[in-house]
Order: sequence, then C-alpha cells, then structure tokens
Amino acid sequence: MIVERPAGSVERLIRLAAADMARVDGFIAARMQSPVSVIPALAEHLIGAGGKRLRPLLTVSAARLVGGRGDGAIKLAAAVEFIHTATLLHDDVVDGSKLRRGKVAAHLIWSAASSVLVGDFLFARAFELMIETGGLESLEILARASRVIAEGEVLQLSRAHDLGLTQETYLEIITAKTAELFAAAAQAGAVCGGAEPATAAVLRAYGLNLGLAFQLADDALDYGGATETIGKNAGDDFREGKATLPLLIAIARAGAREAAFWERAVGRGEQTDADFRRARELIVGAGALEATLDLAADYAETARAALTVFPYGEWRAALEALADFAVSRRA
Amino acid sequence: MIVERPAGSVERLIRLAAADMARVDGFIAARMQSPVSVIPALAEHLIGAGGKRLRPLLTVSAARLVGGRGDGAIKLAAAVEFIHTATLLHDDVVDGSKLRRGKVAAHLIWSAASSVLVGDFLFARAFELMIETGGLESLEILARASRVIAEGEVLQLSRAHDLGLTQETYLEIITAKTAELFAAAAQAGAVCGGAEPATAAVLRAYGLNLGLAFQLADDALDYGGATETIGKNAGDDFREGKATLPLLIAIARAGAREAAFWERAVGRGEQTDADFRRARELIVGAGALEATLDLAADYAETARAALTVFPYGEWRAALEALADFAVSRRA
Repeated sequence: MIVERPAGSVERLIRLAAADMARVDGFIAARMQSPVSVIPALAEHLIGAGGKRLRPLLTVSAARLVGGRGDGAIKLAAAVEFIHTATLLHDDVVDGSKLRRGKVAAHLIWSAASSVLVGDFLFARAFELMIETGGLESLEILARASRVIAEGEVLQLSRAHDLGLTQETYLEIITAKTAELFAAAAQAGAVCGGAEPATAAVLRAYGLNLGLAFQLADDALDYGGATETIGKNAGDDFREGKATLPLLIAIARAGAREAAFWERAVGRGEQTDADFRRARELIVGAGALEATLDLAADYAETARAALTVFPYGEWRAALEALADFAVSRRA
Repeated sequence: MIVERPAGSVERLIRLAAADMARVDGFIAARMQSPVSVIPALAEHLIGAGGKRLRPLLTVSAARLVGGRGDGAIKLAAAVEFIHTATLLHDDVVDGSKLRRGKVAAHLIWSAASSVLVGDFLFARAFELMIETGGLESLEILARASRVIAEGEVLQLSRAHDLGLTQETYLEIITAKTAELFAAAAQAGAVCGGAEPATAAVLRAYGLNLGLAFQLADDALDYGGATETIGKNAGDDFREGKATLPLLIAIARAGAREAAFWERAVGRGEQTDADFRRARELIVGAGALEATLDLAADYAETARAALTVFPYGEWRAALEALADFAVSRRA
C-alpha cells in the first residue's frame, strides 16, 4: 500500500538560509585553493557539481534556530562540507564508483591516489577552518564525527557480501557513516550559536534521525530511482555487494529459489548484466522498498517531533519541511 | 671524497625520554582501539612494527627542553604519531609500496580501501587527542602541517616521471611532505610546554632542518642502502619514477648515453629488472650520493646550530646528537 506523505521541501530552508549559504560558499571556494593546482581542480570538480549542501545547511540553520547571530557558524558550515567532500572522495575510491553528482567520479579523471590525497587536504582544511572559529566544543563534536564516519565505513567494507547482516548492524553502519555527520553538523551549529547543551542535544537528535531517513531513502533509491535523477548509477549498492535494508528485507522474505539468486549475486558477487533488473523486481515484489521508506518516514517523524521544543517560527518550519523532504524526494 | 662525520645517536634521546615515551605508547595503544576490529588490527600491524617514533620524540623533548612539566605534550605526541601513521598508510596506497618497516604493507594484507579508511580513522583520532589537550595553538600548528603534507604529496605525485624537476621544487616537495611534520611536532611541543612564540619558532626551525636532513638521507639510502636495514625495498623511488635529489644530481652530471637511460627508465617509466642496479651505479659514479649527504649534513648542522640559544643541558645534548644521527644513520 502506498501511503501518502507530505511532499516536504528543501527549497524552503535553502531560501531562508540563502544569505548565509552564499557566505559559506565563499569560504568553500576560497579555502579549497592551493598553489598545487591539482587540488583546487579536483575539489572544484566535486564541490562545483553542486549537491544540496544539506550538512552545512543544518549547521547554519541550527545556529539561527537557537538565536545565534555570529559568524562562527558560517566557517563551521564550510568545514562540515569539506569533511563531507573528503569522505565522498575516499568512498568513491573505496567503492570504485563511476559516477557522482551526475559527473564522472574524480578518481577516474585524475587517479585514486589524487582523490585520496585531495581528500586528506580537505579534511585538514576543515580542521583549520574550525580552529579559526575558536570553539573547542564544536571542534570536538566534528572530530568525533569524523572518526565515527571512518569506523562506519570500515564496518560496512568488512561486511560487504554478507547476507547474514542483521538489520541492527545495518542501522549501526548507516548511523555511523551518514547520520553521525548530520547529527554533528546540527549540534555543532547549535553550540556555535550559543545553545545550552540540552538544546544542542535536541538538534543533534533532529540531525541524527534526519540522516537516518535520508540514508534509508537513498538506499531505496538505489533500487527504485533512475540514474539521471539520483546523479549516480542506480544499482551501485547491489553491484558492490552492499547489504542495504531493501536487500535484507527482500532476502528475509525470499523463497528457496530466490535465496539461491541472492547468495550467488550478492553473497558470492557473481553477477551478470541482467541480475540488477531481477534484483529490482524481487525487491519491489517483496514490498521491500515500501518497508524501507516506511522506516525512513518513522525517522523523519522523530526528527520533526524533536523540533517541538522550539517555538514555532520560520526556521523551525523550514527544518520540518526538510524532514518531510527526506522521504518524499526522488533524488 | 668521504667526509668523516660525528656518528650521532638517537639512543641518547630515546633513553632520556623513555618514561614520557612509555606513556605516549600507552595513549597510542589505547586510542587506536575501536569496536570495528579491522581498525586496531591494521593500525597495530604498522604501529607495532616499531619505527623510531622520531616525531613524537620531538614533541616530548621540545616540551621538556623549554621546561614544560605538564601532561599535554604526551597526548600531543601520540597525536603526532597518529598523523604520521595515517600519512604512511595513505602513501603506501598511493605509491603501491610493498614493504614498510620490514613488514608487508598493510594495503596488501587487508586492502587499499581498508588502508585509506583506517588512515582516516587515525587522522580523526589525532584531532580528538589534540582537542583533549585544549591547546588551540598547537592544534592550529598540527592542522596546518597535516594540510601542508597533503599538498606536498599531491605535488610529488603530479611531478612523478618529470626529469625536468628543479632542485628547488624537489626541496619544496620534501619540505612539505616530511620536514613540515618534524617542524610542527617540535613547535607544538614547545608551545604545549609553555614556550614563548620566539622560542617555539627556534624549535620549529630545528625540526624543519632536521626533517630535511632525514629526508635527504632517506633519499640517498634508497640508492645506497640494503632492503634489510631500511625496512622497505631499496629502489622504490626509482621504480615509482620519483625524481629525488640523487637522481637529479646524476642526471645533471650525465652524458648523452646516460641521459637516454634516465629518460627511458624514469621519464617514460620503461624499466627492466637490471635497471635499478645500473641506476645505482650511475648515481654512485656521479658522486650524487655524497652530494646528497653533504646537503643533508648542512641541514643537520643548521638544526644543531639553532639549539645554541638554549643553555647546555641533557635535552639539548640529546637533540644535537639526533641531528648528527640524521646523516650518519644507515637505516
């Protein structure tokens, strides 16, 4: 059964934060520069390709929601985007991904080595930017997040092709590799905006649940989306043997013949070109996409509910619309 | 002509700093832990293989030299070793190196992907440790160093196989990729020990020149050392097409026939198994190893001379002995 969900919107937050985000983009453009010309060229390829800048948006809007007026959140938001970009560069090397944000992945144009090193550069730059803001607490939040992301990525890598992955471990992986940075971006923004620990913790909870909703929707889109709209190749997770929730649900609901298919194509990684289409059919047939999106909607609702501690206003409304968008989006 | 040089010693500093370094090792062992078991296993493979811990030694001894008695330098030193380990893991992936510290390189045992991600983990951990010390100034010094190292590595990568590399650019590369962390390790230790900026700058200069001396000696050893003593394969630089100083000097002094050899083997990277032996003969014959070690000795002398602003004492004496060791070492 298809449940109607509020359409949601990221546009509302983008409009509200437009002036701040223009300054964030200014810092991003200035601080990706280096006398070593490969660095800005490679960084620009990925950063200039757009993306929704969700994480820095969270930092800026959390700071504004709690009444912050200073400039610290702007630099912090640029740092958050650099951390995210660094992880994308490294992930695409690790996964051998061919497409990112609708463009050929950087490691295929330059080299895996360049992507690794430019990722390191951006990561270090992020810390330089954060140190300039002088806030040790937000530094600590984002250093911890950076470490947790790496742990999540290693955990995911070590469990590739593992059909015995539990949904609990799957959630542990996506919490670490995705939701943690959403959580840290919002929490650090709130701290930077002058929030008390308890208030910053609420924004952390909002970010964490929002991040889970986004990742679950992303994992559904990998089987339900079109390459043109998601900006990366549909089926990448399947081809890499990543056991994401749609797959785990379909496997749990599979008969013996289907189980043999999953064991061959994902467990042993022996795939033919036609297998992704069959995987997609089995996943859709098992209702696994809807089940995944239902769980995403639960997390989005939890994110939305966290915001009720704040008086109703334009920032809260825009963050609520973002939570709805997490599940309704098609890209 | 072989010039006699003082033998030097790293042992003297190691003995003097033994109690501090035992605590540094304690932090290293504790903070490389993670519930994701691949992480401590891979990190332990490299960190447990030893190495001289030169960079954390510099941090600890700089702090002691300026009269620091606190604990901050201990954590900072562990962080410095984590940054160094992270760069080694990434470098070995970038260079495709097979051997490190006498053991099979981590990326060949686990995978390049694991080495990249565990490097990221250690890098983030380094920042978590530094933040615990609460010193924004030493954080800034080491964040900057981390960024400069990445720039140096990218510059080196983009100039591989380039026989037109000037000695000036070569020095720029090794300053960034190696000397900067020696400089930052010593400077941050001094700052952490309570030194005034001018005093910390002296220790930075000591570290920078010491780092240059070590890297030059390292580049000489790649043509003059035995694999068993240097812990990595002799000839790695040659096989990777890295234009290091011994090579650049030999090329500058080469006749037409030798120039054709260098152009083929390094410029175009077309090598046979016998080529390294021939390269070594040409480099030794051109006096390029001695010229490289002479330059290393100049930097070591500059490092030594910087220390004269400090009253003579056991820490200064041990750091002087380390400068001499930089050039006299055979591994």
